[in-house]
Amino acid sequence: MDRPAIWNRLVIGAKFQANPLSIFPTQNHFSFAARTTKATYLSSMKIGLAQINPVVGDFPGNAKRLLAAYRECLEAGADLVVSPELSLVGYPPRDLVFKSQFVPKCLQALDYLAEEIKEVPLLVGYVDHHHPNHPGKPFRNAAAWLENGNICHRIWKTLLPTYDVFDERRYFEPSESCAPIHWRGTRIGVTICEDIWTESYLQRPFYDRDPIKELTAQGVDLLINLSASPYHLGKPQMRQAMLGGVARMAKVPVIYCNTVGANDQLIFDGHSLVCDAMGNVQCQLPGFETCCAVIEPNSQPCSQSAPLLDDAEELYKALVIGLRDYVHKCGFSSVCLGLSGGIDSALTATLAAAALGPEHVYGLTMPSPYSSRGSVDDSFALAKNLGIHCQEVPIRDVYESFKQTLAPLFAGKAADVTEENIQARIRGVLLMAYSNKDNHLLLTTGNKSELAVGYCTIYGDMCGGLAVISDLPKMRVYQISRWINREREIIPWPTIEKPPSAELRPDQKDQDTLPEYPVLDAILELYVEHQLSSDEIIGRGYDETTVRWIQRRVDLNEWKRHQAAPGLRVTSKAFGIGRRMPIVQQFIG
Amino acid sequence: MDRPAIWNRLVIGAKFQANPLSIFPTQNHFSFAARTTKATYLSSMKIGLAQINPVVGDFPGNAKRLLAAYRECLEAGADLVVSPELSLVGYPPRDLVFKSQFVPKCLQALDYLAEEIKEVPLLVGYVDHHHPNHPGKPFRNAAAWLENGNICHRIWKTLLPTYDVFDERRYFEPSESCAPIHWRGTRIGVTICEDIWTESYLQRPFYDRDPIKELTAQGVDLLINLSASPYHLGKPQMRQAMLGGVARMAKVPVIYCNTVGANDQLIFDGHSLVCDAMGNVQCQLPGFETCCAVIEPNSQPCSQSAPLLDDAEELYKALVIGLRDYVHKCGFSSVCLGLSGGIDSALTATLAAAALGPEHVYGLTMPSPYSSRGSVDDSFALAKNLGIHCQEVPIRDVYESFKQTLAPLFAGKAADVTEENIQARIRGVLLMAYSNKDNHLLLTTGNKSELAVGYCTIYGDMCGGLAVISDLPKMRVYQISRWINREREIIPWPTIEKPPSAELRPDQKDQDTLPEYPVLDAILELYVEHQLSSDEIIGRGYDETTVRWIQRRVDLNEWKRHQAAPGLRVTSKAFGIGRRMPIVQQFIG
Repeated sequence: MDRPAIWNRLVIGAKFQANPLSIFPTQNHFSFAARTTKATYLSSMKIGLAQINPVVGDFPGNAKRLLAAYRECLEAGADLVVSPELSLVGYPPRDLVFKSQFVPKCLQALDYLAEEIKEVPLLVGYVDHHHPNHPGKPFRNAAAWLENGNICHRIWKTLLPTYDVFDERRYFEPSESCAPIHWRGTRIGVTICEDIWTESYLQRPFYDRDPIKELTAQGVDLLINLSASPYHLGKPQMRQAMLGGVARMAKVPVIYCNTVGANDQLIFDGHSLVCDAMGNVQCQLPGFETCCAVIEPNSQPCSQSAPLLDDAEELYKALVIGLRDYVHKCGFSSVCLGLSGGIDSALTATLAAAALGPEHVYGLTMPSPYSSRGSVDDSFALAKNLGIHCQEVPIRDVYESFKQTLAPLFAGKAADVTEENIQARIRGVLLMAYSNKDNHLLLTTGNKSELAVGYCTIYGDMCGGLAVISDLPKMRVYQISRWINREREIIPWPTIEKPPSAELRPDQKDQDTLPEYPVLDAILELYVEHQLSSDEIIGRGYDETTVRWIQRRVDLNEWKRHQAAPGLRVTSKAFGIGRRMPIVQQFIG
Repeated sequence: MDRPAIWNRLVIGAKFQANPLSIFPTQNHFSFAARTTKATYLSSMKIGLAQINPVVGDFPGNAKRLLAAYRECLEAGADLVVSPELSLVGYPPRDLVFKSQFVPKCLQALDYLAEEIKEVPLLVGYVDHHHPNHPGKPFRNAAAWLENGNICHRIWKTLLPTYDVFDERRYFEPSESCAPIHWRGTRIGVTICEDIWTESYLQRPFYDRDPIKELTAQGVDLLINLSASPYHLGKPQMRQAMLGGVARMAKVPVIYCNTVGANDQLIFDGHSLVCDAMGNVQCQLPGFETCCAVIEPNSQPCSQSAPLLDDAEELYKALVIGLRDYVHKCGFSSVCLGLSGGIDSALTATLAAAALGPEHVYGLTMPSPYSSRGSVDDSFALAKNLGIHCQEVPIRDVYESFKQTLAPLFAGKAADVTEENIQARIRGVLLMAYSNKDNHLLLTTGNKSELAVGYCTIYGDMCGGLAVISDLPKMRVYQISRWINREREIIPWPTIEKPPSAELRPDQKDQDTLPEYPVLDAILELYVEHQLSSDEIIGRGYDETTVRWIQRRVDLNEWKRHQAAPGLRVTSKAFGIGRRMPIVQQFIG
């Protein structure tokens, strides 16, 4: 990889995961400079950032990851090493914390870790007990300052997000007060994730506490934040602006260490950074990669930084690490999926090839009596371009057998969507058989627009352990696919350019049933992400019939989404963990 | 129905839903007496209890339900009418509250309701806005005192449960203070659900507030609580004891109005009650039925009350109302299900017949090459006993067709669990086709023990819109089935007495693979409900190999349960909304 020398000097022991798909070499363009000018009050302090990828509940493994990163930072001259929120635990541990031995084993791991830490302190995130007889939640979202074999300070998180994908008030009791840590003549304010998110970047003023103000009122020379801040499109930019604002307000440098990798539906983008006291980004670590760096915070403005990515590339990288971590952390090495000749399965296969290596991706093309030959050919062309496996398994015979078996039950009844669903479900059975027989994790390929309006078959094309692109609206699927083809054809152009079709009846096209995708996606964004009412959306100029149809379809398909595979979240409001709708309800609005 | 005269005088306009399955006439044995002695300080106040069954988000419908109950209580001489928590909204509305028009429409409905209320006040539960510029959550879990066309008082909930199935801190801001309402010379302390749950009945002291103490310190003559308290086995007894304790502590009567019916996974059992100032239950309304009653609280001890049910009957009634509400509130009138000849599907069919009427229940028996003839015969015998529909659809031909289709893909590979799963999935496809064609809601029939260890096929026997008995451990399935057969055979005795088998390979028995069910259930209760570690369970004398096998199976099957149909919760810890485990995790303990 082609890195500027300055990066090699700054980033020590970066664990760049080689991209196994050679057609998409990772491009790294880091051009920021390390300012060696030292703010006098910081006495040349060098801060190590351990942007690691913990596995939830894997205390021994996470301790090893932390120690390896710590030692790399040590070799590079760090005076203090910072790791992410709950770095010893993995974020979010969810109800695992209630298991009787979860927190005790976490504390054992913390003790073990402390013994390995010498004079250079390590800040590590973990879960602690709250006092058993004091009222409140049983646990603390905690950070420990380890130094010279001891746990010298314990910091509790103050602001506990309980909205969207977050449930921290379910588990944790907030800190009662904040105080800086005095260390070698420096006053360091240590906070955890949400603690540093000032009001203007939250939807409304959620909290009556402000840990940054509480700390700065006592005087601090440096702010450090341990984070596990989940990714969505635009979040890295937002975070830079927010942290810069905090630094300017507090007039001190801000050290921000974010976790990287994915756990279930949440992707963490890393992008750990250091802001100088003027709020300028002095150094930002790369996104979507594990990485260690040692940096001297200073108060000089600096215009150079790791460039943020454009939308398509950012989404692509997020989905690749999300897919890779889900598959590998679940203990699988290969995946299978259905290749329909359509764009959704083509994009999913491309992401899988990039994440796992094409030799670990197994496609099936399963033509029905209504499939075009082009769909099969496009699937094989895609497989060839990517270097993945592909086999053809026609469903005609099984479909005929189902029709005959059901004939007595369905005597005198006309064909309808039932028969379309049977075809989709036959494919589901075949793919699950492939998955069971050869131990591939099955990927499901539906996009967010389809899932929203229920244009998908439960137990059919919704089968799978992971819904890779279920938070990508259809127009984003096109955007990323074109970006993938920016230099040469990876996804066959006919797949991108032909009118989308489920091919479950003769000459079927998506747009026979659905609004045009640009309109559908625009209305869905207003309805699902912004939670506007139908009337409000119609008031913005959209067609009333279309809006009410979409609203009704979204509401009626909650039951299907309840049984959907977990999906990787890349927008500000995904179906899944962050959106909790009742199934049985009669609100229309 | 045979009711003592005293009950007819007390309970006015009780809306007993006729049990459509005549073989199980509802038995009501209400024998408590109405004491007419009036506590002088209460000035003969007669309290109406409106134990209604709201539908989530159905503001017009819920307003009608409230008004109908209010008017019945009025006719019976009520001086004040109390309804459940969020009675205008349905509990829990979950993320619907974030829809831009949800709370505005709720407030419109409240205004409409207020206009209909004359001099007899109505206490109604609703969602209000929190102040838009004050920090905190955007909403209040609220109660309104409606009187003479006005909203005279608004009460906010103080203790907001955020554990198990509850997420109230996600939405609501707690009240800052509590004060009694002064009305006709009486000081009334109004609280909402959790507010009255004193520390000794919660797992640990969660809160640093105690609304009952705050109110009694100011002096109250009566405590009223609006509740939506979800059912689990033993909860009615626990609630009686808790409310009695509160009355004794406060030395005033307690009026407790609980919601009834089911919303998604939660069943509400009603069992509204009045405790006298000595903590004795003066009157308890029936469980699992909508009901209105008018009662004069007094301070005389009273030993008579509606008897609580034994376990099997209580669970049976809970599941019947849970099933009925899910199906009807979703807009379905009929269900279909697979009848395997086994006990799980037999119990599910029996519950469905009781809930919906046997004419609305459609069974399919789908023998495979490995099915015993007895299984088909037992299914038809069950259908005959219940009066439900049953048809036979053999899966042999489709199974053969799948094997032939997959032969090229599976060349040289031995048969394994893949082939068993194909059979289960063929049945899933057939049942979903039946559901699609005739608009039956498909019920899935798995029990909690199977779901815990993953002894079930995703997209196969797990297919369905509702998992009726997925929170019943296998031994409870036997207990309830025997209770159903207590007078005569409803579920064929061979179904209950034969060794359980999935019949997916020759001579297969559950106990080839699983521990004996009494042992499995006992270990699962310790591991899943009590969250003990393997070591702790082994320490109680269970076989180490068995415990570790179960622990591993439970953990590895989290991904399957993520895609399971919603299940009716009847134990203190169900899979589903109240148990939120990560899928990707490596904690063993």
